[in-house]
Amino acid sequence: MNPLKNSFLNDFKSMSENGATPGGGVDRQAATVADGQNRNWFRGLVEGHGFTVRYDAVGNQYSLLELVPGAPWIAVGSHLDSQPLGGRFDGAYGVLAGAHAALRVKERIEQAAKTAGIPQFNIVVINWFNEEGCRFKPSMMGSSVYTGKIPADQVLETMDPAGITVREALESIGTIGDFELSVAAYVEIHIEQGRSMEDRGLNIGLVESTWGANKYEFVVHGDQAHTGATVIADRQDALLGASALVVAAREIALEHSTDEHMVITSCGEFNVFPNSPVVVASRVNLLVDVRSTDPDVLAKADADLHARVAKIEKMANVRIERGAEHAWGAKAYDQAGLELAARSAEALGLSYGVVRTLAGHDSTNMKDIVPTIMLFVPSVEGISHNERELTNDEDMLAGVDLLTEVLTRVVRGEFVSAQGQEAIALSSSASAVAG
Amino acid sequence: MNPLKNSFLNDFKSMSENGATPGGGVDRQAATVADGQNRNWFRGLVEGHGFTVRYDAVGNQYSLLELVPGAPWIAVGSHLDSQPLGGRFDGAYGVLAGAHAALRVKERIEQAAKTAGIPQFNIVVINWFNEEGCRFKPSMMGSSVYTGKIPADQVLETMDPAGITVREALESIGTIGDFELSVAAYVEIHIEQGRSMEDRGLNIGLVESTWGANKYEFVVHGDQAHTGATVIADRQDALLGASALVVAAREIALEHSTDEHMVITSCGEFNVFPNSPVVVASRVNLLVDVRSTDPDVLAKADADLHARVAKIEKMANVRIERGAEHAWGAKAYDQAGLELAARSAEALGLSYGVVRTLAGHDSTNMKDIVPTIMLFVPSVEGISHNERELTNDEDMLAGVDLLTEVLTRVVRGEFVSAQGQEAIALSSSASAVAG
Repeated sequence: MNPLKNSFLNDFKSMSENGATPGGGVDRQAATVADGQNRNWFRGLVEGHGFTVRYDAVGNQYSLLELVPGAPWIAVGSHLDSQPLGGRFDGAYGVLAGAHAALRVKERIEQAAKTAGIPQFNIVVINWFNEEGCRFKPSMMGSSVYTGKIPADQVLETMDPAGITVREALESIGTIGDFELSVAAYVEIHIEQGRSMEDRGLNIGLVESTWGANKYEFVVHGDQAHTGATVIADRQDALLGASALVVAAREIALEHSTDEHMVITSCGEFNVFPNSPVVVASRVNLLVDVRSTDPDVLAKADADLHARVAKIEKMANVRIERGAEHAWGAKAYDQAGLELAARSAEALGLSYGVVRTLAGHDSTNMKDIVPTIMLFVPSVEGISHNERELTNDEDMLAGVDLLTEVLTRVVRGEFVSAQGQEAIALSSSASAVAG
Repeated sequence: MNPLKNSFLNDFKSMSENGATPGGGVDRQAATVADGQNRNWFRGLVEGHGFTVRYDAVGNQYSLLELVPGAPWIAVGSHLDSQPLGGRFDGAYGVLAGAHAALRVKERIEQAAKTAGIPQFNIVVINWFNEEGCRFKPSMMGSSVYTGKIPADQVLETMDPAGITVREALESIGTIGDFELSVAAYVEIHIEQGRSMEDRGLNIGLVESTWGANKYEFVVHGDQAHTGATVIADRQDALLGASALVVAAREIALEHSTDEHMVITSCGEFNVFPNSPVVVASRVNLLVDVRSTDPDVLAKADADLHARVAKIEKMANVRIERGAEHAWGAKAYDQAGLELAARSAEALGLSYGVVRTLAGHDSTNMKDIVPTIMLFVPSVEGISHNERELTNDEDMLAGVDLLTEVLTRVVRGEFVSAQGQEAIALSSSASAVAG
């Protein structure tokens, strides 16, 4: 067996022990003890291979591999945090693949400078803080700060349900600093988390665009009452209103999806107060999101959601408040990056196709400030955010091979130029890096 | 002002400080520190007036007032535990009213034996453990054990969401013992928790019957998935199934209620797993109850509920498991007790009427083993299980007056006979008292 391939799978297996759950998944929610253990394991691993590790003000972890002293940086990354009872692959695969690909690029350069070409960039592997957004909201937190979408101070004061702030949590696991770095381009590899690649028999997905997504926090206000003694006419049942909203969201997905453009709606968090067996709920906080590949379809579905909110308020005799919202438009990745990735896959003989990402990723943020390439490997049966999440070994290894090839080409200047791009990246990210 | 009346209101005000919440209510969930503080406050109060206090194996608190040494016992009671953010009146009013009424009966006997008649019974004020059923399920726990409906051992091993058993919780507040007592009859006064008495302008409600109630714990089983990346067709969304069940329950109440017989449905507890913003729920546990004044209407509504469960399973692609259930039939209280209470209200010049109770009470259990009288005082706007729950001072005092009159008559043998009833009560409750 190729010792390099064996080493990736060994490292992946070892990493999966950090925060392992009995059901075969991991629970490494952002800045928990398990996340801290994994971050330190990863730091040890890459420092052993010559990387230097630093943290920025919101806990993004930078593993720096210098190839050309003084040259600008290419970033490759993803996230090591997970959902509660999440899978081993989501995010974590991409970070480890980034480190292995970076080392293989370095080896290529050292062993056969002619094949690899003359490097024009250094490589930084970034583990973005809190991509998942389960313990601290919103998701993609670290990359949102890096790209200037959310101020660092706001993130640091954000509290989890127990009242612990991001700052306190990061300090408690010792993974916070003041490092800052501009990068010239970004590359990410991730599991698909859907089944389209499996259905099409692809090894590699080249991500063409993100879906648009509107995410809302609704607060349904009712009035606390006795479930037995209060007649129906007197009830202001927050749970009924919130439940009707969940049912309406599904109806919207079914009614607004077209053959060309799918609509997906979801509610993942739903908290009832006071949640006692014999009490009519006074309040429910819930998150609803609406996604589509097409901005017009998304806008129509969104308008329908808000029209239904008004009807539900009357039906359940409640008041529905729209709280925090978080939206991103359907946006394309760089065409030049898609073409570079396609050439790389062809060179390696991998079957590839163009896909869209339904889920948000750190690259969703990064593509707004620097040229970005996003790659997928398949998920068995599309299962994700689940302990049974699986990507086969051969698919993981093919992804590392492809990432190595893509990074080699990017480092030798096929994607962005070290001269021109450096200036562009520095000026755009100088304003973007908050704090 | 009548010093006795003043004393009741003073005591009620003082009691309401135990477990007081900022919103003007109380939080004294069963066997919490606040419930323990209140139980000890009540013990101190009644011991100061000559009662003896004992606890049975499941924490029911007996305050014994001996009038005739060796005579059988009449019980008067309710419960001191509350909902989270509950009102000050629910249950607590009845226990304190029982103690004050018992003392006034004793005073009447001592001061004017002729008016009060010769007593044939002693009086025990019972504070039933965990009527509310919020921390430990099911509700009416203490009286269910006393009346032989649930074994004491099962109750003692029941755990709260933190894994603490009833036995551990009761031992931690020191309110558990091995006392046992048979009683010949039971009297309870409680707030209505509905608005029918206020609407009719009544001071006093004489409870004719309970509503029938079927309570179910449903577990909706789905499969954990990514809210963004998983297409609708692949989802097994437990939250969607549970929400549809909440909406269906309301539809059932509206469709099955008739002019004669109302149907009330509720869902008070609803727990989502894993409840993360970007995860399709794998499981929801929820409680649904269906109540009606008529057994046939209840049976039809209940059948409709289960038919809809099957449809929801298909719609949401989930499996719905019916877990624990807990039911009681629509049952009448003793006609003789209703008549005695009506005569008592007339003697005091109080406006009264016959009502039904929608909510379950400890008397719902007690009436199945001994002759039982259930009395109501009004609730302002019918608000209950809410910090704004209110019964006006004059209504509370009228209730204590009536309870005193009713107890006086029961104690002198107008409801049950000390000879005949003693034997009946002993034999029926001997088998009923578990452990």
